[in-house]
Amino acid sequence: MFGTETEFVHWLQRRVPVRGGSLKLGIGDDAALVAVAPGQELILTADLSIEGVHFLRRVHPAHAVGHRALARSLSDIAAMAGTPRFALVSLAISRRTPRPWIEEFYAGLLALAKRFGVAVIGGDTAVVPAGTMIDVIVAGEVPRGRALCRSGAQPGDLLFVSGRLGLSALGLQLLKSSGASPTRYVPVSRRQTAEALQAHLYPEPQCALGRFLSENRLASALIDLSDGLSTDLGHLCEASGVGACVWENLIPRPEVPAARESRGVDTLDLALHGGEDYQLLFSVPPRKASQIPRRFRRVALQRIGEIHRSRELLLVRSNGKQSLLRPGGYDHFQKVKG
Amino acid sequence: MFGTETEFVHWLQRRVPVRGGSLKLGIGDDAALVAVAPGQELILTADLSIEGVHFLRRVHPAHAVGHRALARSLSDIAAMAGTPRFALVSLAISRRTPRPWIEEFYAGLLALAKRFGVAVIGGDTAVVPAGTMIDVIVAGEVPRGRALCRSGAQPGDLLFVSGRLGLSALGLQLLKSSGASPTRYVPVSRRQTAEALQAHLYPEPQCALGRFLSENRLASALIDLSDGLSTDLGHLCEASGVGACVWENLIPRPEVPAARESRGVDTLDLALHGGEDYQLLFSVPPRKASQIPRRFRRVALQRIGEIHRSRELLLVRSNGKQSLLRPGGYDHFQKVKG
Repeated sequence: MFGTETEFVHWLQRRVPVRGGSLKLGIGDDAALVAVAPGQELILTADLSIEGVHFLRRVHPAHAVGHRALARSLSDIAAMAGTPRFALVSLAISRRTPRPWIEEFYAGLLALAKRFGVAVIGGDTAVVPAGTMIDVIVAGEVPRGRALCRSGAQPGDLLFVSGRLGLSALGLQLLKSSGASPTRYVPVSRRQTAEALQAHLYPEPQCALGRFLSENRLASALIDLSDGLSTDLGHLCEASGVGACVWENLIPRPEVPAARESRGVDTLDLALHGGEDYQLLFSVPPRKASQIPRRFRRVALQRIGEIHRSRELLLVRSNGKQSLLRPGGYDHFQKVKG
Repeated sequence: MFGTETEFVHWLQRRVPVRGGSLKLGIGDDAALVAVAPGQELILTADLSIEGVHFLRRVHPAHAVGHRALARSLSDIAAMAGTPRFALVSLAISRRTPRPWIEEFYAGLLALAKRFGVAVIGGDTAVVPAGTMIDVIVAGEVPRGRALCRSGAQPGDLLFVSGRLGLSALGLQLLKSSGASPTRYVPVSRRQTAEALQAHLYPEPQCALGRFLSENRLASALIDLSDGLSTDLGHLCEASGVGACVWENLIPRPEVPAARESRGVDTLDLALHGGEDYQLLFSVPPRKASQIPRRFRRVALQRIGEIHRSRELLLVRSNGKQSLLRPGGYDHFQKVKG
């Protein structure tokens, strides 16, 4: 732990920019001061990361906690088709936290910030008896009138997702079953293990894809997959006043050998309800569907269903039967995983 | 407690604006979207309010917790000479919190927001086992180049404060000594009791004063008094690379009858180290000092000292003797009150 608040602030100030470009004043005054470029609108988002809720000390390394805390907010900026610019970090640190944990937390957060061109410019700090809580606020920019919302989907639009869904939830399952040791995972192949762990510990916000969809006017509605497909598809449909149908066969899932899957890993369940994939879900008018590439950079884009007028969410199973798709993602008030 | 996250979000959406003016999109999408007026710079600040650290369930009514949580951030905007515009509220609610507490919390926060023209446009929510934590983020505007920082004080400048210092700390002392009952306070007069309680539970951010100082180019440096005069004066002097001298006789303090004061209420200690007054401390070049009014709106402005070149902070006592003024305000890492 740092000796005084001043010592901590000075330590942090040496690792972040104080002025430059549109940053007029960073950490160290009563508040931060920035310029917003003409013709741009400002996107603001805040995301909590709480010990015991969003991360576990025995499972998540501090470096990954820092990465994930910022990634959650960057993904929200991606989901508005924006470019993240500035971040504030509010940190309530439990008293027993060793200083290296805080240093590693910031190393993980600042490495991701640097890669996305985001300056950490403020926040608040407090020490609490137990249970570290982090709130990351990100301010981003988007050209005026070009933000993509949840509310624009029309009947007949096709639904697409980026990446494979459920990888993050699989990664968490592997981490939990491995106990404290990083060498004893449940027996999936090494490449698949590494991929799932990477997806869970170091999710990659899809900011470039969000901008691509907006710049080319391809998407009618856009949301990021933070709570799970079943829940976030519900959010998009509710905001748009529509329903949707998705095909089980089309949902891109983690690769797990069939023999292993039968031992308890249900990749469909993970893909539908797992959450924390931070991939993008978007609707595309049919006449524009051919303009959606199979891959954007190295991430696969997959059509998984379509929007219909009826408010229902339907899942077409592999055997052709339809069932209602109920939101099974995380609800903080209910504290249940679907 | 609310049944589901959706129920809570819908409840909140009915109490806040979703669109209008520079607000393009409020609560309900992946992030909020706002326009910043041309010629304005953006001020961003975040402030934590944590149960057991910043407020106590048995002492602070939920309505006042909501007011104070937002007031902390509004005061930071005042300290930059800005106008607050938008707020995000991140709320980690302890599971045992009854729904009326949350409703009262928002009632207090939204009443202050309305009075200052601030729209609540986003945030995050989670449920935690114990220990409610709130992070309030405020975005404000200030005309380009007109923000007032901590760093502009020059040797020879005069130091002013608004209001009386230590009132909030006195109010907290009264609340704590009264136990749970609001009728049994330590014996100060009724008016003085009411004033101290008001100052503690419902502090008034000095945004109009901050703007007045900037618009008339009166202040060379500005900070708000959140941690206590001894600590915040140190911040202002450190940022400006100067020191200061303040006169005990000039520091405006709570009115407590002398007889009572001798029974344990040390108003100088409260004024120097008490904190949470959310008044403004500012330096003024001598040639402009005559332009500082005795009162701004109904708040007294008082000259308390001056800036000097030596880095020391000095206190001139009533008997004429000088002593070093050491920071005695709250330090979260040290967990000591001076």
